[in-house]
Amino acid sequence: MSTRLGDLVDSLGGELIGDPQIGIQGIAPLDAAGPSHITFLSNPKLRSQAMATRAGALILSTAEHEKLNGFAGARIISDNPYAYFARAAQFFVARDARPVVPGIHASASVDPTARVAASAVIAAMVVIEAGAVVGEHCIVGAGSYIGRGSSLGAGTVFYPRVSFLADCHVGERGIIQSGAVIGGDGFGFANDQGRWIKIPQTGGVRIGDDVEIGANTTIDRGALEPTIIEEGVKLDNQIQIAHNCVIGAHTAMAGCVGVAGSAKIGRHCTFGGAAMVLGHLTIADHVHVSSGSLVSRSIAEAGQYTGFYPLAKNADWEKTAAVVRQLDGMRDRVRELEKQLRALSANNDSTSRD
Amino acid sequence: MSTRLGDLVDSLGGELIGDPQIGIQGIAPLDAAGPSHITFLSNPKLRSQAMATRAGALILSTAEHEKLNGFAGARIISDNPYAYFARAAQFFVARDARPVVPGIHASASVDPTARVAASAVIAAMVVIEAGAVVGEHCIVGAGSYIGRGSSLGAGTVFYPRVSFLADCHVGERGIIQSGAVIGGDGFGFANDQGRWIKIPQTGGVRIGDDVEIGANTTIDRGALEPTIIEEGVKLDNQIQIAHNCVIGAHTAMAGCVGVAGSAKIGRHCTFGGAAMVLGHLTIADHVHVSSGSLVSRSIAEAGQYTGFYPLAKNADWEKTAAVVRQLDGMRDRVRELEKQLRALSANNDSTSRD
Amino acid sequence: MSTRLGDLVDSLGGELIGDPQIGIQGIAPLDAAGPSHITFLSNPKLRSQAMATRAGALILSTAEHEKLNGFAGARIISDNPYAYFARAAQFFVARDARPVVPGIHASASVDPTARVAASAVIAAMVVIEAGAVVGEHCIVGAGSYIGRGSSLGAGTVFYPRVSFLADCHVGERGIIQSGAVIGGDGFGFANDQGRWIKIPQTGGVRIGDDVEIGANTTIDRGALEPTIIEEGVKLDNQIQIAHNCVIGAHTAMAGCVGVAGSAKIGRHCTFGGAAMVLGHLTIADHVHVSSGSLVSRSIAEAGQYTGFYPLAKNADWEKTAAVVRQLDGMRDRVRELEKQLRALSANNDSTSRD
Repeated sequence: MSTRLGDLVDSLGGELIGDPQIGIQGIAPLDAAGPSHITFLSNPKLRSQAMATRAGALILSTAEHEKLNGFAGARIISDNPYAYFARAAQFFVARDARPVVPGIHASASVDPTARVAASAVIAAMVVIEAGAVVGEHCIVGAGSYIGRGSSLGAGTVFYPRVSFLADCHVGERGIIQSGAVIGGDGFGFANDQGRWIKIPQTGGVRIGDDVEIGANTTIDRGALEPTIIEEGVKLDNQIQIAHNCVIGAHTAMAGCVGVAGSAKIGRHCTFGGAAMVLGHLTIADHVHVSSGSLVSRSIAEAGQYTGFYPLAKNADWEKTAAVVRQLDGMRDRVRELEKQLRALSANNDSTSRD
Repeated sequence: MSTRLGDLVDSLGGELIGDPQIGIQGIAPLDAAGPSHITFLSNPKLRSQAMATRAGALILSTAEHEKLNGFAGARIISDNPYAYFARAAQFFVARDARPVVPGIHASASVDPTARVAASAVIAAMVVIEAGAVVGEHCIVGAGSYIGRGSSLGAGTVFYPRVSFLADCHVGERGIIQSGAVIGGDGFGFANDQGRWIKIPQTGGVRIGDDVEIGANTTIDRGALEPTIIEEGVKLDNQIQIAHNCVIGAHTAMAGCVGVAGSAKIGRHCTFGGAAMVLGHLTIADHVHVSSGSLVSRSIAEAGQYTGFYPLAKNADWEKTAAVVRQLDGMRDRVRELEKQLRALSANNDSTSRD
Repeated sequence: MSTRLGDLVDSLGGELIGDPQIGIQGIAPLDAAGPSHITFLSNPKLRSQAMATRAGALILSTAEHEKLNGFAGARIISDNPYAYFARAAQFFVARDARPVVPGIHASASVDPTARVAASAVIAAMVVIEAGAVVGEHCIVGAGSYIGRGSSLGAGTVFYPRVSFLADCHVGERGIIQSGAVIGGDGFGFANDQGRWIKIPQTGGVRIGDDVEIGANTTIDRGALEPTIIEEGVKLDNQIQIAHNCVIGAHTAMAGCVGVAGSAKIGRHCTFGGAAMVLGHLTIADHVHVSSGSLVSRSIAEAGQYTGFYPLAKNADWEKTAAVVRQLDGMRDRVRELEKQLRALSANNDSTSRD
């Protein structure tokens, strides 16, 4: 399928420099693009690659447009070429998508008291419990489970095999990927003479609009009040959000992040892969945590935070690790040296003055 | 629904100071509770909040009872207010639970040689293989899988979408949450000239009574002998227990913990989130490992252990990390300083004596 | 069932010293083996245990054979006793396996345009979408999902409840364990004034022959080009492979490892549990990363690499951690000491010469 470049720009905005009649089949990377592809330049390091691309059209910033010689195709000038690329990719995916056929697969098990919009798709082997609500144009992938009283806002998509347990609510245009478990019991136990007594977890989960949740990610229900994921949050795969957390709007977390119970994360934060946040902490807005870091205290100030241990050749690491274990003693030795040096120095001064 | 406070105390014990006729609807946090709620005080830092609560009844210790003025509602005195709260919450959940309707859902696939107790619930899309046994009052959630020859003790509950593979056994009153995989193959391979040869994993998994396993947690089967989870163990979400581990009774692990193969963990231990234990280690009883720590050696003595890297502003971290890499050299420099200082000092002494 | 020892050696190779008529029922560990078991010695530390074993036959190297006195049973001499043991274990598992009954379970939902080999097994509740291909002798476990246009090479086995989404391809003799999600969307978003714009992920996943993927492991599809897992790769449980990674042939990763987007991992590498690799890095062949290490830069040279923080008693750790935070200042103090000592020393020298 081919789209007129002019029609793409009419739809997405930006300034077109070049022939609007060019036919575009889709997106391709700089080095793989041909005359019927559109590509993009957002990283200045790739400028020379952009000069050499055979793409029919190139998305780039005004600054790069002025620096870029030697590219003969059409140009689309955008303030944010990467976001423009994202929207163009969405455009082509929507253009090429197979038509959605609404309806409930014969093998699905839907409780008669559940309300499923006529425009929704319920795939094979899905189970929907009593009182659940599935909004307009939702797609519930094969083998997914929707618990009692839970709800999906309009346009939300579950990939195959999502577990969305009782009393969980997700807003509009959400995506929940395969294997995710929303609404598992929070990890709450009281210790009584060495035995653990389960504290029933009766809060649910509330997820705002435009949230994406990755494969095999888990979000526990709250103990008494719900766990909250605000609008626009993006969670990658295998993330664990414990009970009663609040994840602020538009925060993004990469794979394998863990957030312990009752942590309150601000808005517009980012967490690198495998970062961990301890419980009951408060993290301000616009905090960025590096991959592999463990956040062991609240953070009140925006900024980039890091706490991981530098990688080394194993033999070097063993030496360093040995010293790290003795660091406390080493500080004392340095202090003692300073003291002796002061004494010696004073003595020498007096000797010299003699 | 409302319960007479006196009936609650008759059921759970503790000393009631106040009107047994008060009607209690349920549990609420200190700040949200009203006259028909019961709440609790277990953390002395919340004493002023407890003084101001509007709750109809308050669970607290004798010590707090004596310090707490200004709260006019009923009091329940307990040695362990948090455990009392847990039991009260269980009481209300049981009171309000919908009646369970035993039986096998029409869509389930149950092998004719499997034995399912008449009082058990087998939900939609469940698959139960040959020779499996499901005990009295078990609930097997929608889409769960029970492998050949596996068994569930009385009262055990699987949330939707559990994978419980062949030759796995769980005791009574267990809870296994959605997405958990019990009995996957242990990671066992022999290397032969650069190729990995799979070692079949034929041990199963044995899980004791009163064990809870969180969402998307994985427990591998043993290579030849079973992997063992003793009674009363509580595992949070996304924990990985490798083949041939033994997790001692009443040990609790928070989310994202990993335990490598053949590790033997003691009883009554706790592991903070994302702690990791290397293989073939032995950990004593009553060991407590902090979140994010990597246990790289056996621990023979009870106590609290920690090994993570302190979080810092990224710029500070970069400076520190640079020094950490040079630590080994720094130790040598300190030693050299000490030596020189000794020499200098000896020299000065002799000079002085001259 | 019993197998003549001579028949086993005829099948697997190696030199038999002893009676080929011995009947072997199966494999057992050194300390549990009886006269009808075969066992193995690969770790010299277990030599005294091997001397005492009651096993009917023992697999061992020439070197151990010469050192081992007192074991009266039959011996199989092999260059690689551990690999021989693996193959023997496979032999007994195959001997004892129940016959496979090909066919599609009545409850499965298979699109009429999918091609399923007549020798394949499709278990209960499986869903197979349009255009998918399931090769000869494949086994697709209960409740698994195979997306549109995806394919399984001959002899590949899915354990129950695998999610294998659209446009994913796995070669021959693969094993994918329960809960694994292959082909979830990569985590790709462009930020536009604080909002995240999804970048559609249209690359698939390509997996070579003889690959094993553990329980609840996730492998994301590529953004434009496929994510690639080369032949012979072995991934343990709960591993996260992000979009556009390449994992080189015969590389093995233990549980909970995470690899961020576009990382290129070499061949014959090993990663200990919970190791993390940042995005866009390149790791050479034959690199071995210790458990819990975070790989924060490319590695061009084969070898063992480590970067974790040594575990300590919590009280010791707190002291050390405090010093770590001050390390940068400590380096400056050491430098200052060196400077002062040089000055003092020079001064003393001149004093002495006076």
